[in-house]
This record gives sequence, C-alpha cells and structure tokens, in this order.
Amino acid sequence: MNILTTNIWDNLPILAAATETESADSALVLAGVLLSLVAIYFTSKLGGEICYRFNLPPVLGELLGGVAVGVSALKILVFPEGGADAGDSLLMQFLTATSALTPEGAQSVFMAQSEVISVLSELGVIILLFEIGLESDLKELIRVGPQAAVVAVVGVVMPFALGTGGLVYLFHLPVIPAVFAGAALTATSIGITAKVLSEIDRLNSTEGQIIIGAAVLDDVLGIIVLAVVASLVKTGEIEIGNVIYLIISAGVFLIGAILLGRFLTPFFIGLVNSLKTRGQLLLTSLIFAYILSYIAQVIQLEAILGAFAAGLVLAETEKREELEKQILPVADIFVPIFFVCVGAKTDVSVLNPAIPSNREGLILATFLIAVAIIGKVVTGWSVFGQPDINRLAIGIGMIPRGEVGLVFLGVGSASGALSKPTEAAIVMMVITTTFLAPPLLRVVFKPSEAAQAVEGVTEAIETSPKP
Amino acid sequence: MNILTTNIWDNLPILAAATETESADSALVLAGVLLSLVAIYFTSKLGGEICYRFNLPPVLGELLGGVAVGVSALKILVFPEGGADAGDSLLMQFLTATSALTPEGAQSVFMAQSEVISVLSELGVIILLFEIGLESDLKELIRVGPQAAVVAVVGVVMPFALGTGGLVYLFHLPVIPAVFAGAALTATSIGITAKVLSEIDRLNSTEGQIIIGAAVLDDVLGIIVLAVVASLVKTGEIEIGNVIYLIISAGVFLIGAILLGRFLTPFFIGLVNSLKTRGQLLLTSLIFAYILSYIAQVIQLEAILGAFAAGLVLAETEKREELEKQILPVADIFVPIFFVCVGAKTDVSVLNPAIPSNREGLILATFLIAVAIIGKVVTGWSVFGQPDINRLAIGIGMIPRGEVGLVFLGVGSASGALSKPTEAAIVMMVITTTFLAPPLLRVVFKPSEAAQAVEGVTEAIETSPKP
Repeated sequence: MNILTTNIWDNLPILAAATETESADSALVLAGVLLSLVAIYFTSKLGGEICYRFNLPPVLGELLGGVAVGVSALKILVFPEGGADAGDSLLMQFLTATSALTPEGAQSVFMAQSEVISVLSELGVIILLFEIGLESDLKELIRVGPQAAVVAVVGVVMPFALGTGGLVYLFHLPVIPAVFAGAALTATSIGITAKVLSEIDRLNSTEGQIIIGAAVLDDVLGIIVLAVVASLVKTGEIEIGNVIYLIISAGVFLIGAILLGRFLTPFFIGLVNSLKTRGQLLLTSLIFAYILSYIAQVIQLEAILGAFAAGLVLAETEKREELEKQILPVADIFVPIFFVCVGAKTDVSVLNPAIPSNREGLILATFLIAVAIIGKVVTGWSVFGQPDINRLAIGIGMIPRGEVGLVFLGVGSASGALSKPTEAAIVMMVITTTFLAPPLLRVVFKPSEAAQAVEGVTEAIETSPKP
Repeated sequence: MNILTTNIWDNLPILAAATETESADSALVLAGVLLSLVAIYFTSKLGGEICYRFNLPPVLGELLGGVAVGVSALKILVFPEGGADAGDSLLMQFLTATSALTPEGAQSVFMAQSEVISVLSELGVIILLFEIGLESDLKELIRVGPQAAVVAVVGVVMPFALGTGGLVYLFHLPVIPAVFAGAALTATSIGITAKVLSEIDRLNSTEGQIIIGAAVLDDVLGIIVLAVVASLVKTGEIEIGNVIYLIISAGVFLIGAILLGRFLTPFFIGLVNSLKTRGQLLLTSLIFAYILSYIAQVIQLEAILGAFAAGLVLAETEKREELEKQILPVADIFVPIFFVCVGAKTDVSVLNPAIPSNREGLILATFLIAVAIIGKVVTGWSVFGQPDINRLAIGIGMIPRGEVGLVFLGVGSASGALSKPTEAAIVMMVITTTFLAPPLLRVVFKPSEAAQAVEGVTEAIETSPKP
C-alpha cells in the first residue's frame, strides 16, 4: 500500500487515481490523529486530576496516564519506534472497526498517524520550553545571587558525578547511557518545586527564594547539559574537543541569542505594536521561537534550547505578561501530547520484579533514586553566609525532577542510546522524586512554621504567584 | 529511501538500525515542519497586514500570501498532491543546504513533512469551524427570524441553482464539479460580513441584523450542502436515495448532536467545574469537538460539521465566553496554516490569459463571479414586511464569500473532483467577492446614513461585538 502510493507519486503524480488514493489515506490519517488526540487529552486530564486529588503534581498524572494507555499496559497508543505495528494498536483496531479503513491499509495510516503525533509531541516540548523560558527571569536569577548559584551548581555536579561514576564503575554501564542517566539526574523541576512551595506557603521564605533561584539556574544548566549529552550521543563518542565545542556553542548560542534578542527587542516590540491583525504577538513570537529552534537543531544542539532562549529573550520585554497569557492555551493543548507520549513509549514492564531479567532495571532504579535524593539534599549545606537557614528544607526542595528530567528521557529515548532498563529506571527516578518531595517538604519545615503557614494559606492563595 | 524504510519497518521493526534511521529522519522532519511553520506564519502575517492596510479582510491576505509562496509563484511551500517532489520545494533545498539532510533522504522527509503540515492544516479548519460554531448563536438565529431565514435560503438556492445549472448547460461541465462549484457559491462569510458591517457601523441596523442572521444560517446550510456535495463526490455519482440519506444524516447528526449536547451540557459544566488542573475547559471542549468530528467523518460527513456542531452546543453554555477567549490563541496558530496551505496548493497560473488553454478558466471565473453577485444581490428583494428597508444593501452584504467557500475549495481540491481551471475559478470568485463587498457596501449605504454612521463610530468601536 505504502510502496504502491510511493511509486504512483514518484511516477504519475498528477493522475486522478493517485489523488484519490492519497485523499482516502489522508482522511483516515486525520481520523486516526483525532482519535489519538482524544485518547491523549482524556488520559492527561484523568491522570492529572487523580494526581491533583492526591496532592501530587498533575504532570506526574499525565506521565502515568501515558504509561497506562501505552505499550506497557492498554496498548491504545503505541509507536513504531517501540517495534509495534498497526495490529498492536487498539486505536488502529478501533479505527478499522468503525471506519472504511481496511486491515491492508492500516499499516500506512498507522505510520503516518504516528509520525504526526510524534511531531506534535516534539512541538509540545518546544512550546513547553518556550513557556519555561518565558516564566524564567534573568534579572531575578541575578538578584537571588550567589547562594542560589552555588546550590544550582552543586545540585547539578553532585548527582551527575555520583550518578555517571556509579553507573560506570559499580554497574559497568557503557559511558554514553551512564552520562545520559547522570544528566537526567541534574535538573530540578521548577514547575513542581514552585507549586509545592506555594502550596505550603514557603515560596517567599529565604529557603524558598534560594530554591526557586537555584531551580531556575538548574533549568539553564540542565538544558546545556542536555544539549551536550544529546550531541555526544549523536556522535557516539566522548571527545574533549567535542565537549568543549559543544559547551562553547551552547554557551555562545544561548548568550548570543539573548544578547542579539535583547538588541532586537525594541524592533520586535515596534513591529508587534504596528501589526493590526489577529495573533500578531503570538505568531511573531512563535516565528522567533521556531527560527531559534531551527538554528539550535541545525548547529547540533537541540530545538528546545532555541525555544528556551526565545522565551528568555521575550520574558525581558513589556509583552511578557500578554504573551504568557496567550501561550497558556497553546501549551495546554500541545504539552500534554509530549508527556502522555513519553509515558506511552516507556515500557515499564521491565520493572516487574517477578521476572529475573528485570532485576538489573530495579537495581539501577534504586541506585538512581538514592543518588537523586542524596545529590540534591547535600546542596543545602553548600549555602554560605546564612547560619540560621533550614538546610535540609533547601535540599529537599531541590529533589523533584519533572519536565526537564522527562525531556532528557524523551531525547535519550529518541536517540536510541538508552537501554530499556535504563529508560525505565529514569522514569522510576522521576516518578519517585516527584512523589517524595511534597510529603517530605511538609515534614522538614518545622511544625511551628507549618502552623504559621496554615494561617497564612488563605492570603497566600490570593497573593502568591501561580505555580 | 522511503521504500527501504517501509521494508525495515515491516520486517525488522525492533532492530536498532531501524530506530536510528527513523530517529535521524524524525529530527529532520521536525526541522522541516519548523521551517514550514515559520514560512506559513510569516506569509500569513505579511499578507494579512497588507490587506488590512488596504481595508480588506486579513484572511484574503493569508490566501494570497499562500498563493505567493506556493506552487504558483515562489514554490517555497509545495505539496505532493500537486505533483511536486522534494526537488521542487525551495524549503527542502534550504533544509538540505543548512542541515545534515542528504538529497537522497530529502524525498522521505518531504513526504513526512507534507503529511504533518496537511494534517495541521486540516486541524486548522476543524478549529476554525469550532470557533465559528462557538461564535454562532442558535437563539439569536431564531430571534432575527423569518426574514433572515428567507434571505439565507434564497441566498443558498439561487447561486447554487444558477451556478450548477449554468455550468452544466452553458459550459457542459460534468455534474460533480458543477455541483461543487455551485455549492462553493452558497455560503456568505460571517466573519468578513460582520467585520465590514462593524467597520461602517451598520451592525445594529435592521439591514445589518438580517444580514448577520442570514449569514449565520448560511453557514449551517452551507455546511450541510458541503457535507452532501463532498459525500457525492466520494461516491462518484448522484443518487437521489443517497442525497436524501445524506440530508437526513446531516440533519440528524447536527440536530442530534445539538439536542444530545444540550442534554449533556449540565454534566459537561459540572465536570469542567470539578476539574482542578490547567486547561480543564479547553481540553474537555476539544475532546468533545474531536469526538463529534470523528463521528461526522466516520458517518461519511465531514469532520468540520462535527466541530461546528460542538461549537454550537458549547456556545449555549455559561462557559462560552471563557472558551472563546481560550480558543482564540489556538485558532491564531492553527487557522493560518489552513488558509496559507489552500493558497499554496492552488495553481493560479491557469488564469494567465496569455495562454490560450487558460481561457476556459477565465470564462468560468467570470461566470462564477457574475452568479455569485447576482445570486446574493437578489436576496434583498426576498425580504417581506419591511417596505423601507435598503434591499440593495442586504444583497451586497451577503456577497463576500470566504472561510466556508475556501473550505469547499479545500475539500474539493483534496477529493480530486475539481479540475484546475474550476479550482482557480473558485479562488478567483472568493477573492473577487471578498474584494468587492467592502467598497460596494460603502456606496449602497446612503451618504446621509454614512454621515450618521461616522458620528457613531467611536461609540460603536467600544460597544459593537467583535467581528
């Protein structure tokens, strides 16, 4: 079917027959994409709401929902990368049963639909990082100052060094997956951390300020680490020259984009203000974000780095608030596609302890979780000049991974560098750290403080920035 | 390359080699999609803004911009349906020059990228019709009453009968394309009409009320006509039984969806209010819209009919305003993809009068434009019980085609039923009617009225509903 279509296109593209074949296919591809989006949105809302009821970050629910509908369990949403074909997909079976799709035509529709959903999921992570960049604040970053920087650097170096070193020397993993897993341990989830802190009314405490500042810096460091690691995986080896080239190109790209962006900002604002038609701000901003994403992709970095840089630059303009408001619904419909797909593509069945061959993954996961917690908890003791500070609270506040950790997983997954036990272990690490942080934070902030916090909750809900 | 990939997928899907091939491709497909979106957004803004400066509807600029970057002129954005391959696409040449893409790999990336952009464009028209449904108002429709209904029906029947009959009997076209072209003449553009009326401050006049009411009804009738015609094209023949089945199924689907939707509305509102996580309203609404779109698609109607019905149902709820606000940025990023792609896929070079073989298209276009104007202008004289009404103004107000006319073109184009001269003639008809209406409306509303109108402009800008 696919081959036939290809040949017709190659040789007789203008024939009406070809047009009709393609048209039949594309109507069914659209039907498949609509069904996939319904499944993804339903899953993300169900998972998100359940997690919300248990006081856990909704993003965790989207991931777990993805695991539930994906290759590990219900097999509603499966992808060819995992070795699935149309026959393995419940969604394609439903499409075949309800539409004019024939079993023979199912494979080409499945491939096309998977391609579209994968690209939508990649656009989802690009828009997520654009939004994170937009919510970040370079000036805020500079203001919270040296303590946050030390916490961020220690919180990136420690888990990365302990994780990578441990995996290579204790577990004898190859260097590439070890570096990837180590890198996935680095970045604190700014969204999850800010949300948890605001829930317990500690966002504006000194500890909260340092945590948020460090988490913002962590995001930047994490993305540079991701770009470096992803590029290393692409070239297949570690060359010091290459590492230096990548650090420099990541740094030059990020700093260059920001400086050039700030230089161009007045023209951008002037342009947007002179435009009169609908969507002038949003489309102009997305053009900027997509161009930087394209450049980042082309110079061997990742598209998300460009989107993040675009977000940081636009966050400096007077249009930030308006743009944040407009990007919100766009992110709402794109970002869940990413998280649900990451979950759906992850085969967590390798973590079943009943199967002996799975024990490697479980042991890996236990090790990664221990390093993830220890590597961040120690950062509290790196804070200087603040003798009365709650060091444990800062360390615990840095624990939750999330978006960026999952971005690492997604990129690693797509590159094929990670073995299934390592992938599953990373998912388990992200899930566990995200699960653990909220209850632990409640414990480490002293009861008296917690009592005060409860009194302040009503006010805080009204006045605190949104998570 | 494409065939090789297909074979690997079919036979050895789990091989790492396959994963790596797919992964390399998918990064380049993403890069291609990013570039395409940059080109589409840039084109839509440039075209829209230029038209805005000349007091023309921005949507016209998006269409003309699409023509400029598409197969007719710059060939930046071309599609395989038009017979193009990767070598014809300036965008793919740019991608090959700037990225790791090889000329050998270009064709498969081109096909995948075109598939993704086509699906995004189809999602664009689905979201547009959802938005139009959301902006429509069943109660308002009933209130403006019998006059609007008569104008709407006359304004659908006259151009359809004159257009189809003329094409078959005068031009000896086959029945299918004649019916399609006739159908494309039916629907007044509610967006363009409302915008023009608000610009000259006649939105709240009796004439304006009737025009808007009729245009809303026109949308519904036009969509039913579209569904009927598109299904006729699919089955390839006109059977009275089939026509009746389709009219009934379109009617039953639309009325059933609305009645069932209204019955389910309290549960929907209750559900949305009980959800606590981001995007609860938007995603729940899109799930509803996509399910109806899927059902409409599967029962041989068009996906857009389902999206429109979902919009109409949700317009009846208390969430309408909030949802309209949230769908706005989503429509801003999706809808231009549709209009630019329609323009890009249209080969207007067939309208070049210097080439003798093109004269058929030009004569067709002249005929369609005449019917499009006459068929709507006569509707003014169908208004009863309003002796002092400006009948010419009502007729002129119904002239602009637009979104729905282009939807017909898009669907007809995709189905392969339309010859290139007919397609180009429809585009020229849509362009001409949309061009003509704003200046004509200024002329037919009497100078004294226009003077009064000018005085009222400031208030009107603040109080009139948005176009």
